[in-house]
Amino acid sequence: MPETPVKSVYVGVDLGGTKILAGVFTPQLKLLASAKTSTKADRGPKSVFERISHVVRDAVDEADLDIKQVRAVGIGAPGSIDPEQGRVIFSPNMPGWVDIPLKKEIEKQLDVPVFVENDGNACTLGVHVAELGGKPRNLIGIFIGTGIGSGLILEGRLYSGFNRTAGEIGHMILEVGGPKCGCGNKGCFEALASRTAIFRRIHSAVKDGQKTILTDLLGADLSDLRSGDLRKALKRGDKLVEKVIEDAAEYTGIAVGNIINIVNPEYIVLGGGVIDALEDEMMAIIVETAKDYAMAGAAKGVEIIASKLGDNAGITGAAVLARDSAKG
Amino acid sequence: MPETPVKSVYVGVDLGGTKILAGVFTPQLKLLASAKTSTKADRGPKSVFERISHVVRDAVDEADLDIKQVRAVGIGAPGSIDPEQGRVIFSPNMPGWVDIPLKKEIEKQLDVPVFVENDGNACTLGVHVAELGGKPRNLIGIFIGTGIGSGLILEGRLYSGFNRTAGEIGHMILEVGGPKCGCGNKGCFEALASRTAIFRRIHSAVKDGQKTILTDLLGADLSDLRSGDLRKALKRGDKLVEKVIEDAAEYTGIAVGNIINIVNPEYIVLGGGVIDALEDEMMAIIVETAKDYAMAGAAKGVEIIASKLGDNAGITGAAVLARDSAKG
Repeated sequence: MPETPVKSVYVGVDLGGTKILAGVFTPQLKLLASAKTSTKADRGPKSVFERISHVVRDAVDEADLDIKQVRAVGIGAPGSIDPEQGRVIFSPNMPGWVDIPLKKEIEKQLDVPVFVENDGNACTLGVHVAELGGKPRNLIGIFIGTGIGSGLILEGRLYSGFNRTAGEIGHMILEVGGPKCGCGNKGCFEALASRTAIFRRIHSAVKDGQKTILTDLLGADLSDLRSGDLRKALKRGDKLVEKVIEDAAEYTGIAVGNIINIVNPEYIVLGGGVIDALEDEMMAIIVETAKDYAMAGAAKGVEIIASKLGDNAGITGAAVLARDSAKG
Repeated sequence: MPETPVKSVYVGVDLGGTKILAGVFTPQLKLLASAKTSTKADRGPKSVFERISHVVRDAVDEADLDIKQVRAVGIGAPGSIDPEQGRVIFSPNMPGWVDIPLKKEIEKQLDVPVFVENDGNACTLGVHVAELGGKPRNLIGIFIGTGIGSGLILEGRLYSGFNRTAGEIGHMILEVGGPKCGCGNKGCFEALASRTAIFRRIHSAVKDGQKTILTDLLGADLSDLRSGDLRKALKRGDKLVEKVIEDAAEYTGIAVGNIINIVNPEYIVLGGGVIDALEDEMMAIIVETAKDYAMAGAAKGVEIIASKLGDNAGITGAAVLARDSAKG
């Protein structure tokens, strides 16, 4: 008689608009193996379900384990999520993702319990539990990449609000009448400090004839510009990139100041591709600006730090979600 | 032997920079009587302690009761408050109010238990408990007067954050580089939509030669301008006042939209002198603007309403504080 496999590991999935990451974790949140694939969101939800299942199996195989040894899968997905039902209510960057039963579909394919959360919430959960040992009672995670995601831990627990959409910090208006955002409004934090906003400002400055080393590196059309290129340009003293990054860091600091004034958390943790690539250049400006904008006494002892989880924040948080949901 | 009086009522005190209100309430929060006095904050904290005790005794006397029948006194005070110790840590609009043991001082004078909260928190508590029966799990109160106060009820309880300063919504930056605020920053919500901001815009427009009925009513220097005068001017079709109030309502709507995006509460309740005087003119614009700025799905079912408590929000909330703290 074959031995019943011990269900001993958890898989965390970070579902993004362009790529899907999966990581296999021990109950102590040690990462055993991971796998990655492109999302191909334009092929529609059904194709994405298959790609998620595939990358989960790949990660499990990479860890020399069998899917039967997975106790639960957690998925951090973009957009507004109903975690109780495991449904994606709406995901603006994924064509056709309206009221999608993600939990049910992946459970059907993997025969493992699946739990779904908003990606900003998942990353925040990862930082809170795996990076800070679950200690801070109130913590806000802000993740700056193509867009800006966020999550709130209040009184020790993930807080999602009335419609489960809390944490849309990227769409906080910081500059009425400011640059247009993908959401249709103007002057959102995301339209001022995301990678998209930073790249748009650099493109437009180059069009206006401003000089930058980036055109030497990538050609006049700056094709395939990445956050890492900005760091290279900064290292070489590029004035344009310096100004654009300083501005983005200042807007981020103002957003952090607003959050301190409104929610007064113990920790504000920054992460995402932009912070991962430009931590050394941005964090000091972010912290200083936030303290300038916070009311007297409000910022005292508040920790404003960059996450050390980097690109793994999403899979780690999704694994925490899987572990803690499967317990219940 | 004299009969021991039944300790059956609670007194709520609204301590403001210019006036102090006290109200005597039944445990069911029925207002029996109230009294009012000026704060005379410039005479220093000791004088204010005496004025608070005096107005509490006046209100109790007005209700044909004796101070011995008061079970507890609650005080809503401006600035940052330590409710556990009952201390005012810092109150920017009250000269000399730095680390003031308000609870201890008033207890000494009245020989009744005293509890202290931030005024925005007290008003929010009043709205939550007395106006909405304590039902909403997540509610934000925004009170627009000379300044802008606020309070957060999250998961059914008053939320005050790490340094107990949460709810400084008036100092959320809405317009980077915008008009200067009393706090020293630029572009705060308070600098764009408080009574101070509205009056400043009208004064400056009159200086620039713009026409308004207000100068006919109050003279060229607009001395003694009040929120009620603005309503009179609007009723007579005053274009300048209309534009200024519309702008203030729009900024308020943007602030409410930000709060919906960040905290996603079930209720946002507006109050304070400006809203009390101009509810009919402002609320429709506030609600429409907030829904424009909220993300898809985030504002669904969220109630954005004006409080019916008017000037009594502060004393009512302070009475709730007294009642619920004295229980424990």
